[in-house]
Amino acid sequence: MLKLYYAPGTCALASHIALEEAGAQYETVRLNFAQGDQRKPEYLKVNPKGRVPALITDRGILTETPAILVYIAQTFPAAKLAPLDDPFALAQAQAFNSYLCSTVHPAHAHRPRGSRWADDPAAIEAMKRKVPQNMTECFELIEREMFAGPWVLGAAYSICDPYLFTLAGWLEGDSVDIARFAKIQAHWERMMARPAVNKVVTAHKHG
Amino acid sequence: MLKLYYAPGTCALASHIALEEAGAQYETVRLNFAQGDQRKPEYLKVNPKGRVPALITDRGILTETPAILVYIAQTFPAAKLAPLDDPFALAQAQAFNSYLCSTVHPAHAHRPRGSRWADDPAAIEAMKRKVPQNMTECFELIEREMFAGPWVLGAAYSICDPYLFTLAGWLEGDSVDIARFAKIQAHWERMMARPAVNKVVTAHKHG
Repeated sequence: MLKLYYAPGTCALASHIALEEAGAQYETVRLNFAQGDQRKPEYLKVNPKGRVPALITDRGILTETPAILVYIAQTFPAAKLAPLDDPFALAQAQAFNSYLCSTVHPAHAHRPRGSRWADDPAAIEAMKRKVPQNMTECFELIEREMFAGPWVLGAAYSICDPYLFTLAGWLEGDSVDIARFAKIQAHWERMMARPAVNKVVTAHKHG
Repeated sequence: MLKLYYAPGTCALASHIALEEAGAQYETVRLNFAQGDQRKPEYLKVNPKGRVPALITDRGILTETPAILVYIAQTFPAAKLAPLDDPFALAQAQAFNSYLCSTVHPAHAHRPRGSRWADDPAAIEAMKRKVPQNMTECFELIEREMFAGPWVLGAAYSICDPYLFTLAGWLEGDSVDIARFAKIQAHWERMMARPAVNKVVTAHKHG
């Protein structure tokens, strides 16, 4: 059976929602990042990067949100979570997810995890100060250029939606008011109304 | 005809090599980042993110290296640039490329583009100082855990190879000796011996 390693508050939420939306049979393992579970030897055997998500399959272990999301879409095709038969449309979906993982996620990470990129405490504070501006610019771009509506790609719900929902959920902690982005706020609420999303969000909150 | 926007020294090299390996008919547009071409209104109409690569197709514009690479593999299947018929193997390829775009590329970018993440000059200098350590840790992980050899995924050359080659080419500028990573150094030389790679590298060098 598929097994997803996750921690609350991380981007693993996107893969967890996708598994639920796909109707997959899966189990989960919750890591406690505050206790450093992700750095313990038993977890580094699962994912040497010491990050989540990690998805255990019968073929081996997969990591990295964009890869896991397409894998779920491909292995549960009946759920229609990606435009699998159209290389251009799939590339647009991948471009969206790639922007989230390569630009938006790092823009956010400079608040809680600045020590990845500098040792000097003053530098880490300087990074934190710029996070609201950078996250605002990212979400302005998404709102203006990348979001078709009502779902990310348009009429069809896809693997892009739980990923956007996950990162939009970080705005409040980054001191950015989601209400600045009308389409993204409406999308967030539309997502919360989905039973699969509500179920997984509740599980992450209450463990 | 496909048209690739690129700038020398950027990750657009990976997509350019993939087009050449695929035997695609394409033309290129070279941007001069030093002159700020990527921020000019005419380019922002192509890619509002102000980054490269951007690939113009008959369906529209694609951005983001991992998305473009899979698109090239899917639209030129005869070139066998990705394990398209095996969702797990494709997810492994995607996980590799996703690690490059979400972790390795930002690790490098803190040297030339620290001003993205802090305004304070001292903080930007602090980021630069940590780049060699971070790039070393990334490439140690790739060498130890992620590189099958002789190509990234094993016996078959794929879209992961030009992407790894591109980022490995940044090590010298980041003050990291590629010789620390025996497999990656050998891969870099194996890549340079490919006519398609040599042709594209030469074009980027001489314009």
